[in-house]
Amino acid sequence: MNDRFLRACRRQPVDRTPLWIMRQAGRYLPEYRELRQRVDFLTLCKTPDLAVEATLQPLRRFPFDASIIFSDIMLPLEALGCRMTFNPGPKLAEPVRTRAQVEAMTLRPMAEVVPYVGEAVSLLRRELDGKTPVIGFCGAPFTLSAYLVQGEGKEGFGKVKAMLFREPATLEHLLDKLTMAMTDYLRLQIAAGAQAVQIFDSWAGLLAEPEFRRFALEPVKRIVAGVRDLGVPVIYFVNAGPHLVDAAVEAESDVLGLCWRSPIGATFDRLGSRVAFQGNLDCHALFAEPAEVAARTTAILDAVGGRPGHVMNLGHGILPETPIASVEAMVSAVQSWTPRELAAAAEERA
Amino acid sequence: MNDRFLRACRRQPVDRTPLWIMRQAGRYLPEYRELRQRVDFLTLCKTPDLAVEATLQPLRRFPFDASIIFSDIMLPLEALGCRMTFNPGPKLAEPVRTRAQVEAMTLRPMAEVVPYVGEAVSLLRRELDGKTPVIGFCGAPFTLSAYLVQGEGKEGFGKVKAMLFREPATLEHLLDKLTMAMTDYLRLQIAAGAQAVQIFDSWAGLLAEPEFRRFALEPVKRIVAGVRDLGVPVIYFVNAGPHLVDAAVEAESDVLGLCWRSPIGATFDRLGSRVAFQGNLDCHALFAEPAEVAARTTAILDAVGGRPGHVMNLGHGILPETPIASVEAMVSAVQSWTPRELAAAAEERA
Repeated sequence: MNDRFLRACRRQPVDRTPLWIMRQAGRYLPEYRELRQRVDFLTLCKTPDLAVEATLQPLRRFPFDASIIFSDIMLPLEALGCRMTFNPGPKLAEPVRTRAQVEAMTLRPMAEVVPYVGEAVSLLRRELDGKTPVIGFCGAPFTLSAYLVQGEGKEGFGKVKAMLFREPATLEHLLDKLTMAMTDYLRLQIAAGAQAVQIFDSWAGLLAEPEFRRFALEPVKRIVAGVRDLGVPVIYFVNAGPHLVDAAVEAESDVLGLCWRSPIGATFDRLGSRVAFQGNLDCHALFAEPAEVAARTTAILDAVGGRPGHVMNLGHGILPETPIASVEAMVSAVQSWTPRELAAAAEERA
Repeated sequence: MNDRFLRACRRQPVDRTPLWIMRQAGRYLPEYRELRQRVDFLTLCKTPDLAVEATLQPLRRFPFDASIIFSDIMLPLEALGCRMTFNPGPKLAEPVRTRAQVEAMTLRPMAEVVPYVGEAVSLLRRELDGKTPVIGFCGAPFTLSAYLVQGEGKEGFGKVKAMLFREPATLEHLLDKLTMAMTDYLRLQIAAGAQAVQIFDSWAGLLAEPEFRRFALEPVKRIVAGVRDLGVPVIYFVNAGPHLVDAAVEAESDVLGLCWRSPIGATFDRLGSRVAFQGNLDCHALFAEPAEVAARTTAILDAVGGRPGHVMNLGHGILPETPIASVEAMVSAVQSWTPRELAAAAEERA
């Protein structure tokens, strides 16, 4: 079994740095676009066979060291009674704006609401048969609340931020419910076979550190603690959060996912003894020529310098227009990388 | 003349911390909305009498310590042949995507292209008659390029970032032209009477520090150097850039504008001997109750502790739905603030 991803999550030595890519099953793959011409997004997510097919597509092209189950962070919110459509982003039937709405939310068990996610994870585990570990995931409560309060994805997410300052107790109440829901949701995925889980805080970067601690980090801490007994590594991805990394360590996740704004070498120097790091090539760098993609990938590996506890990835999800050749260049650069000292010694011998 | 804003920009002592608000002339004011019912946005910008009227509206309500001329960062791009509409954000007739397009751009003198901005600044100076200083402004080259390449405002501005990695020389060529154009534009405003200028880098926060230095900071350095002989303070506002503040100091502007993500007290501790700071109340905090707005305003003043070189402001532009009462609470808190030691001494005497 390829366990270098799981070993790196636990800061154990590995034969080479593991690599996977956020949103690796997605629109940059022609076979995914072809699949989507046959089925709509929700059907794809809700049909285990199809979700597994989408998950496996990138693995047939690239020797990634982990597979992340194909799904969407918004789906489990049906457990709190939230109804939405996707086009392509989520649009809530009814944005959550009042204390009364939050109080009226009751949480149904995830096994009733999203059984298809557990089935997909189990099926994926069987299909992969140890080829790569399976990652489950959920949205972080603050990020989910940003969509629920705004009603859709929108730059700045002004509505949730206004609620944060005007009615912090209402937001905390909503976050409490989301925390319970996401704990249940990750437990379901782990029970079904997920060997690691990632919590996506895509919009935490909108917050200054004091608000991040109270409204984003606290819920995540509780989720991490709530799945800790299940023994799988937890990755906490904080997008656009170079100013939040030092606080985010307190989530006590095994791994922190870095966006491209954080200098990974300096971050390792400061915090590498406390947590592993995942990332962080700028996803837009994949629009460069392959040689440049390789050079930038190598620069990140050089900055980490082979220290244990690094999972190579992008700094955010891969973009739909990304050339396949760029992913190939990134993969090759990771496969061929050796620490400078080793490379220098090899050169001397030659 | 009220010169506490200009004195604070130069890190000289002031009787109290000066205050102005980014986008203080705007949709949160009923009188502005009323004005906009009569005239469209471009007419407002291009008619000096009307632009001055919009600029003066907030000053009739609030004792702000500076006025910023009502305009839009995109208007001077007509000097490079860019055509666009506003609805409400800018939409380019033809996004700039190729080297050939950049090379074909020739720069016309600003005095020919946007004479109305100079006229508005002169008129504003006369109308204010020393009541408050007048701030001129421009967009920073990287931020302007983000709109030009994308063709409109769009979360993430993927097109300019792809160009940055794929064709850095093309982007630099575009940035060179924008740098010349904006230097000319600020010089026009200063010649017309602007007593300070602000450079808005609203999208620089999308960059990691190495790319920020090359594609955002370098052009701004040249603009700052290019207006230095005119002797007015220059403010460089880097939005969403808590990770860029230490590099941004190298722009050698007199003031750095901070978004709300940077802790202003710690930033002063580190860099307050090199530059003044402007900011940085979260603009969403104005949706809280007035007492909370006052407390958060006071917390920022406390963090700075009365050190010279602070201009109070929001961390980004005021939002259209902001209650007037919140602005009043912010103003009162600034007017009544005294350093803790003085407050304690006064209490003892009483």
